[in-house]
Amino acid sequence: MKLVRYGKPGKEKPGLIDADGKLRDLSAHITDIGPEQLGDAALAKLRKLKTDKLPLVKGSPRFGCPVTGTPKFIAIGLNYADHAAESGLPLPKEPVIFMKATSCIQGPDDNVMLPKGSVKGDWEIELGLVIGTRARYVSQKDALNHVAGYCTINDVSEREFQIERGGTWDKGKGCDTFGPIGPWLVTRDEVPNPQKLDMWLDLNGERMQSGSTKTMIFSVAKLISYVSQFMTLEPGDIITTGTPPGVGMGKKKDGKPAPIFLKKGDVMTAGIGGLGEQRQLVVPFKL
Amino acid sequence: MKLVRYGKPGKEKPGLIDADGKLRDLSAHITDIGPEQLGDAALAKLRKLKTDKLPLVKGSPRFGCPVTGTPKFIAIGLNYADHAAESGLPLPKEPVIFMKATSCIQGPDDNVMLPKGSVKGDWEIELGLVIGTRARYVSQKDALNHVAGYCTINDVSEREFQIERGGTWDKGKGCDTFGPIGPWLVTRDEVPNPQKLDMWLDLNGERMQSGSTKTMIFSVAKLISYVSQFMTLEPGDIITTGTPPGVGMGKKKDGKPAPIFLKKGDVMTAGIGGLGEQRQLVVPFKL
Repeated sequence: MKLVRYGKPGKEKPGLIDADGKLRDLSAHITDIGPEQLGDAALAKLRKLKTDKLPLVKGSPRFGCPVTGTPKFIAIGLNYADHAAESGLPLPKEPVIFMKATSCIQGPDDNVMLPKGSVKGDWEIELGLVIGTRARYVSQKDALNHVAGYCTINDVSEREFQIERGGTWDKGKGCDTFGPIGPWLVTRDEVPNPQKLDMWLDLNGERMQSGSTKTMIFSVAKLISYVSQFMTLEPGDIITTGTPPGVGMGKKKDGKPAPIFLKKGDVMTAGIGGLGEQRQLVVPFKL
Repeated sequence: MKLVRYGKPGKEKPGLIDADGKLRDLSAHITDIGPEQLGDAALAKLRKLKTDKLPLVKGSPRFGCPVTGTPKFIAIGLNYADHAAESGLPLPKEPVIFMKATSCIQGPDDNVMLPKGSVKGDWEIELGLVIGTRARYVSQKDALNHVAGYCTINDVSEREFQIERGGTWDKGKGCDTFGPIGPWLVTRDEVPNPQKLDMWLDLNGERMQSGSTKTMIFSVAKLISYVSQFMTLEPGDIITTGTPPGVGMGKKKDGKPAPIFLKKGDVMTAGIGGLGEQRQLVVPFKL
């Protein structure tokens, strides 16, 4: 299933995208798509619904993040060898974990706001996964059974805040609007191999990132197993699994550093094969 | 007011500690103590209750974390000059922000579990604050008006996970049971000056940490204002504001490093003047 939440911010209704790509309303069956709706039994119940009987939704409503009530938004750094290289950082020996503030989560097409004083806004197309069932010290073999589904994420970053302002990366990763997620939560039964997904990100129509989850250093299963050794993963938790090369910070010209950072009016479009595409307009800081 | 949540884990009821130190039940007036109950109007309503008419609670129930539904658990590193020195790290030029997983939050007297493979468990007594009203780009002058109340926190840490396992500190800060909070949420009207609170932590009855919030590098007001530039602070968010010297990692003998780390059977007791005391037994890893 391709689950969605549609409607105005804070007023989203649950829905799904049918086989013909049409949006259908699920609110007669579930109140929302959150921790309570992500377990295997709850998803199996939804899967039994006759999709063609669900009400069609008129128009083209906004999409929200396809899951609400996320307790933790966990991120993995430097999980693609080429991206580590472009960042000028050594290949990690074990996964790098940081956290994005849950308050940065927003819909896939909502505007991205540059924070006050931001001069180094940047993009990172990433495969996201949403936890469906509690996971603690899970084996790599069992790890994917704890996934409710997968989604497209732009791990928006402010490199000065992240790297030059002291302390850990969290400062430049969790600013409001820095977590566009969606459009869809694609349940895991429809993603037989999460290590075989193409991904891309364009800035103003020009290809910036182009990669595949097959070049991850640590697989999705490894990451879930690993993170579950440091904290219990709960239903609704999101893990974003790192970005392939092509971020603005790493851009070069004639072999020399020539970084590109986000500015007002830029448009980011991004997608992952089978998981849907997103689009954000970059807007200046506004209270 | 000294607000509490009492009862078995996951089944806590709201209550308060009256002027005589007796526990009284609030569940006829509020369903729980979470984001909805932390705003100024909600707290003012509670303050009007005739405390001596509230039902007394019999026995000595367990205390849970005095606030539930915390969206973000934000932590400040190296906020006491002497602690930065004992950590062998330079004085920060601006506050160091990291995040503790909300899944580590527990009651003030619940056992602290050493994670699998832990060899460097450590303690950090810290002043915590709970946000009452949304704060975004707030001035230092207005910052404390966004605080619902203050509490005692032990920012339990695993130094190997935090420092030697690659990446940011979050890996060693958010393990299950690493966030004992409470016993009380003391509303801000009863804490006229958060920069004048004595704090201490004992390990097995021996004084390890002894300090005062007056030696913070960045004041509570400054921290709130600062963090609100990087992310919106929401009702229920907790900020823990850094620890004074005396952590296990920094212990010395005859001028040479002689760190002390947590082991099975250790007992940590800790408190902050006016905010109450907590006690944790250290237990080994158990699934």
